[in-house]
Amino acid sequence: MSTASATADPETFAQRLSQFYAVGRWSSVNDDFPWSPAPRSLPCLWRYRNLRPFALEAAEFVKGDSAALRVITHLNPGHRAYEAACGHLYSGLQALKPHESMTCHRHAASAIRFVHEGSGGWTAVNGDRVRVDPGDVIVTPSRLWHEHGNDAEDGLVIWQDCTNDPLVNTLGANFFELHPDKTHLRSTPSTDSLSLWGGILLPETRRDRDASPLYAYPWDKCHDALIAAARAGNHSPYDGVILDYTNPATGGPVTRTIGCKLQLLRAGESTLAHRHTGSVVYIVARGRGATNINGTDFEWSSGDTFCVPSWARHSHTNQNPSEDAVLFSYNEFPLMEALGLYAEESVPEHEQHS
Amino acid sequence: MSTASATADPETFAQRLSQFYAVGRWSSVNDDFPWSPAPRSLPCLWRYRNLRPFALEAAEFVKGDSAALRVITHLNPGHRAYEAACGHLYSGLQALKPHESMTCHRHAASAIRFVHEGSGGWTAVNGDRVRVDPGDVIVTPSRLWHEHGNDAEDGLVIWQDCTNDPLVNTLGANFFELHPDKTHLRSTPSTDSLSLWGGILLPETRRDRDASPLYAYPWDKCHDALIAAARAGNHSPYDGVILDYTNPATGGPVTRTIGCKLQLLRAGESTLAHRHTGSVVYIVARGRGATNINGTDFEWSSGDTFCVPSWARHSHTNQNPSEDAVLFSYNEFPLMEALGLYAEESVPEHEQHS
Amino acid sequence: MSTASATADPETFAQRLSQFYAVGRWSSVNDDFPWSPAPRSLPCLWRYRNLRPFALEAAEFVKGDSAALRVITHLNPGHRAYEAACGHLYSGLQALKPHESMTCHRHAASAIRFVHEGSGGWTAVNGDRVRVDPGDVIVTPSRLWHEHGNDAEDGLVIWQDCTNDPLVNTLGANFFELHPDKTHLRSTPSTDSLSLWGGILLPETRRDRDASPLYAYPWDKCHDALIAAARAGNHSPYDGVILDYTNPATGGPVTRTIGCKLQLLRAGESTLAHRHTGSVVYIVARGRGATNINGTDFEWSSGDTFCVPSWARHSHTNQNPSEDAVLFSYNEFPLMEALGLYAEESVPEHEQHS
Amino acid sequence: MSTASATADPETFAQRLSQFYAVGRWSSVNDDFPWSPAPRSLPCLWRYRNLRPFALEAAEFVKGDSAALRVITHLNPGHRAYEAACGHLYSGLQALKPHESMTCHRHAASAIRFVHEGSGGWTAVNGDRVRVDPGDVIVTPSRLWHEHGNDAEDGLVIWQDCTNDPLVNTLGANFFELHPDKTHLRSTPSTDSLSLWGGILLPETRRDRDASPLYAYPWDKCHDALIAAARAGNHSPYDGVILDYTNPATGGPVTRTIGCKLQLLRAGESTLAHRHTGSVVYIVARGRGATNINGTDFEWSSGDTFCVPSWARHSHTNQNPSEDAVLFSYNEFPLMEALGLYAEESVPEHEQHS
Repeated sequence: MSTASATADPETFAQRLSQFYAVGRWSSVNDDFPWSPAPRSLPCLWRYRNLRPFALEAAEFVKGDSAALRVITHLNPGHRAYEAACGHLYSGLQALKPHESMTCHRHAASAIRFVHEGSGGWTAVNGDRVRVDPGDVIVTPSRLWHEHGNDAEDGLVIWQDCTNDPLVNTLGANFFELHPDKTHLRSTPSTDSLSLWGGILLPETRRDRDASPLYAYPWDKCHDALIAAARAGNHSPYDGVILDYTNPATGGPVTRTIGCKLQLLRAGESTLAHRHTGSVVYIVARGRGATNINGTDFEWSSGDTFCVPSWARHSHTNQNPSEDAVLFSYNEFPLMEALGLYAEESVPEHEQHS
Repeated sequence: MSTASATADPETFAQRLSQFYAVGRWSSVNDDFPWSPAPRSLPCLWRYRNLRPFALEAAEFVKGDSAALRVITHLNPGHRAYEAACGHLYSGLQALKPHESMTCHRHAASAIRFVHEGSGGWTAVNGDRVRVDPGDVIVTPSRLWHEHGNDAEDGLVIWQDCTNDPLVNTLGANFFELHPDKTHLRSTPSTDSLSLWGGILLPETRRDRDASPLYAYPWDKCHDALIAAARAGNHSPYDGVILDYTNPATGGPVTRTIGCKLQLLRAGESTLAHRHTGSVVYIVARGRGATNINGTDFEWSSGDTFCVPSWARHSHTNQNPSEDAVLFSYNEFPLMEALGLYAEESVPEHEQHS
Repeated sequence: MSTASATADPETFAQRLSQFYAVGRWSSVNDDFPWSPAPRSLPCLWRYRNLRPFALEAAEFVKGDSAALRVITHLNPGHRAYEAACGHLYSGLQALKPHESMTCHRHAASAIRFVHEGSGGWTAVNGDRVRVDPGDVIVTPSRLWHEHGNDAEDGLVIWQDCTNDPLVNTLGANFFELHPDKTHLRSTPSTDSLSLWGGILLPETRRDRDASPLYAYPWDKCHDALIAAARAGNHSPYDGVILDYTNPATGGPVTRTIGCKLQLLRAGESTLAHRHTGSVVYIVARGRGATNINGTDFEWSSGDTFCVPSWARHSHTNQNPSEDAVLFSYNEFPLMEALGLYAEESVPEHEQHS
Repeated sequence: MSTASATADPETFAQRLSQFYAVGRWSSVNDDFPWSPAPRSLPCLWRYRNLRPFALEAAEFVKGDSAALRVITHLNPGHRAYEAACGHLYSGLQALKPHESMTCHRHAASAIRFVHEGSGGWTAVNGDRVRVDPGDVIVTPSRLWHEHGNDAEDGLVIWQDCTNDPLVNTLGANFFELHPDKTHLRSTPSTDSLSLWGGILLPETRRDRDASPLYAYPWDKCHDALIAAARAGNHSPYDGVILDYTNPATGGPVTRTIGCKLQLLRAGESTLAHRHTGSVVYIVARGRGATNINGTDFEWSSGDTFCVPSWARHSHTNQNPSEDAVLFSYNEFPLMEALGLYAEESVPEHEQHS
């Protein structure tokens, strides 16, 4: 029974053991038993002015079948081989040329898009087509057919893809399918998800509650809501005025693993520091400011992207004396809640500058 | 052991048995074992022009402590001793005089109000005050402090109380409490539930999901939603265009037992007949038309109230060639769903006129 | 506009109003606005030795089509015209003669049976047949086909029907249907719900979670659980040792509106008083004792039935120095929970004897 | 605006881009857009007779602070640097010497243990101590204090650790904490989770439904349930007779991300092939057999461990003519369900041997 009767030499032991696809756990203590979350992602900031030119350049030379993937991916420096911006959140910039559109497809992953530039963008879910403009947020639920494009006469559309591909891929649960027809846009009438699902009265249809029936969240309506919340005194010490993009059929997050928020940092405002499980990727929608993450300041302005890894201490500042700043962000909070893993704590002042 | 050894005479048997607070079930077959629902409520229509004068008259002579109860109750003819309009839904007309207000109170029952007339109406839940106008719908959740009044210089406010008092009373579960202070209106700032909870972005606060955080549903926003749904082709064969008043925190009904709907019957439209468990009370918000209930036509016009008892076959007609009709209704569907008792079926043409 | 311009005489006013099916609410304050629950049911006790002879006698003369209804109904003295033992809980004693069985049927109401006497009882749900003995509890879920009988050579079976018929009837939601075949018992193999659903490992089948897949709860297993809980120190100051009959598919109550409990009052034990919304009907399974309900003592012994109306103050005593007492009870707690109406409070000592 | 105006050379482009922590998505098509799940884990089998000697040897030389980690980890050959047996499931063999025990601790990850050998094993959750024997399954819920040891006079205990550490770690959500006291075992009385939570009657205590109140599932009770299910004809074409270890408070899985099953492959039985999202790790509890995974046969006997990666086609065979085989397995199905990512399909015959 005992091939292991020899005196134990750690090296030899590990070597003999490895032939059986096994390893001694005592040799990997730090990695596997962190006292608190130790994600591989690092805090990082990507400037829009740096990456935009690459998105434009790629629009010129990436063609044909690859055009759907003509995306400049934000790559976290903590794990460059692993294509995620932070934690299991994907982020990338995509430029669409005039009259360009993507073949109708669907996948198990969920996707959100934040529009940076351009006036011809459109997206369609299950054949329902909606126009989108800068600041608008698009939600493409898991497993629903969708397609999108730019139908402007001239002028690019640039938007940011925000997905949970890294999560669904690492869990071994992603499926990708092209529609047998290249497109299945319906002509008329469009149900226009905002008219039906954007108000305080909702259709009585009992429906699959997993996927938000609201596909596009227009900037104006969202920004107005933020201003109204500010006026109503709805204020968080850690986040200024902050609201959730909401699935109207449930009152919950727009997808089952990714949530989206819009927050207002008023001119001159500084927030307290806190930390929580779940990664967050921020896109600066308006204004300028800085976020201190684990003791380092990251200065940002409109269009930039930055990330706060799980459990990283962070606080925000809008040092501008007269201009409000607005941050769009997407996060892993619904994922954490679904698995019972959400945790949050404020960080006392004296720990904030250590 | 056997006092019952005597030959059984049904009369004697029942008599002997009754002294022990018991009865033979075989003597009550029809009542207790209906083949299908046999509610005591009857279809009924109450004209606004008939009851309005009584509400005005009562405003003159019901005073002092009784003023809060100065309500003209709609009494179903199927059970006059039991104060409900239909099933376990209460309905009544209340007139408030200028500068009049009701002491702050709370109860286990839930209340909804539909405003008929007047420009000075207001309601407050937990101190948050909101102005209401004709066509607006107010929701007062179970157990929350609330108060209401008329702060116009002159002119009455008339609204309709829609509650589940009959249900909560018959279940032996109602509590009623007056606030130690007569009022606890907050001065400033008001959170204004519509600004915060009426949009597609919601506050992140985790909250009690039982009570809708949205207290008032303004007529304009509701009517606009109905028009948009009509344009989007969202149409039911039994109800025309119909939408649910929705608790934004859950995507579900405004209270746990009562739901509310607004429906549009377009000029010239006739619907198919169906029936379902759960009573419905309708208030005519706009226009004229008729509803056939179990074979009888009930003609209605603006301001009227009528009811469809549980499982009664019904269809609607707007015979007007040019004017749309709009019906507000409240129902027991959430109650039925919560208890697993909801059932629905369409009624074939040949059964509709039997 | 004003038929009501005449000076208001209360009598006249009410009379004029009644023709329009309406009434002034101010005239019915006490009934409709109780400060705390005011159920119509009264505390009551029914002795088994009083009612058993009637059940036997009825078995002789109630025949043919009425046999299925040969039940001695417990009638609450607070509302004799309304066939319920307490609140909306039905209770009745049924005797089945040897070789007698009831035609297969189903209904929207849910039924529970507690076996008092006899060795030949059986019940079947969806064709799965199970034998039952004294002390066993049977659950017949809403809408499932079921049938039952007595297949003993001689000797009656007496069990107690415990249903929510009064609730489902008053809500106008009951359906009753006879199976096209008189029976649809399956021959072999029986799935035997206890073998499959009575353990700590459960079938993986995803199933309708509304109806308990466990149909029969044998006395021995239930009583053993009570003894084990007593040994583990699981003790309530208001109820002694008390356990819930549980739907294994949900961990919740056996039906959506009725829950069942088994409780042990140890020799010499007295509990503290409390009250809660929701009616309870108790059946004495073992021993003797007394329950004080709103200040009145009700002494009970094995086989007796008694009830505690909603919000009635109650405490239990087992004055016997050496014998434990066991109470089976069924209640409206799941109903109260589903509607957000459950409330509970302990009653201080000085209020207990008022 | 355009630093990228130069003619696009793919190599140069990627290089220039990488300085900004970004990459072109079109260069990584296969990895990021799988047509169907492409997990990194490979099918694998670990023989108990190969690894057991290492566990014994390690018991001799791994001491002191490392003893708690004296575990022989099963390492999937598809990702040797990443300590998981399959997907995000951890598996490892731990030997405890007589009188040895582990310091009381807690963590956000959930743990399950399957006992292979020895008679002195015990575990305690929140101070409640339970004895475990071979075949028993222990559940240690997330965030609850626990400790365990071997109190035999002589003889090792060997059990297998089954956890979701890889998941909770990669999500950046693990916390690990030692109890300020080394132990907090309660002396008397033990609540003995099986007595209270192992039956068909459950304590009424409303409790946190996330963590199973049942800590230990004894082999005898589990195996009996399997035999009873077999007798009742509860049979799956893909898995033989298969049952779920169940949280009695919910009717659902024992933890929020990991489920456990016990299955019986009768003498001579062969199952059909299917595949599903979610990894599974099997431990052979009794008998011998083979599992075909993606076309390769893995032969197993008592004590062995093998794994089926997400979406791998698999079928089981018990070629033994007279002896039943029993497999314990733990899986990621609750994780998949919680995120809306569960998918399953049978694999037609002609695809099974490709």
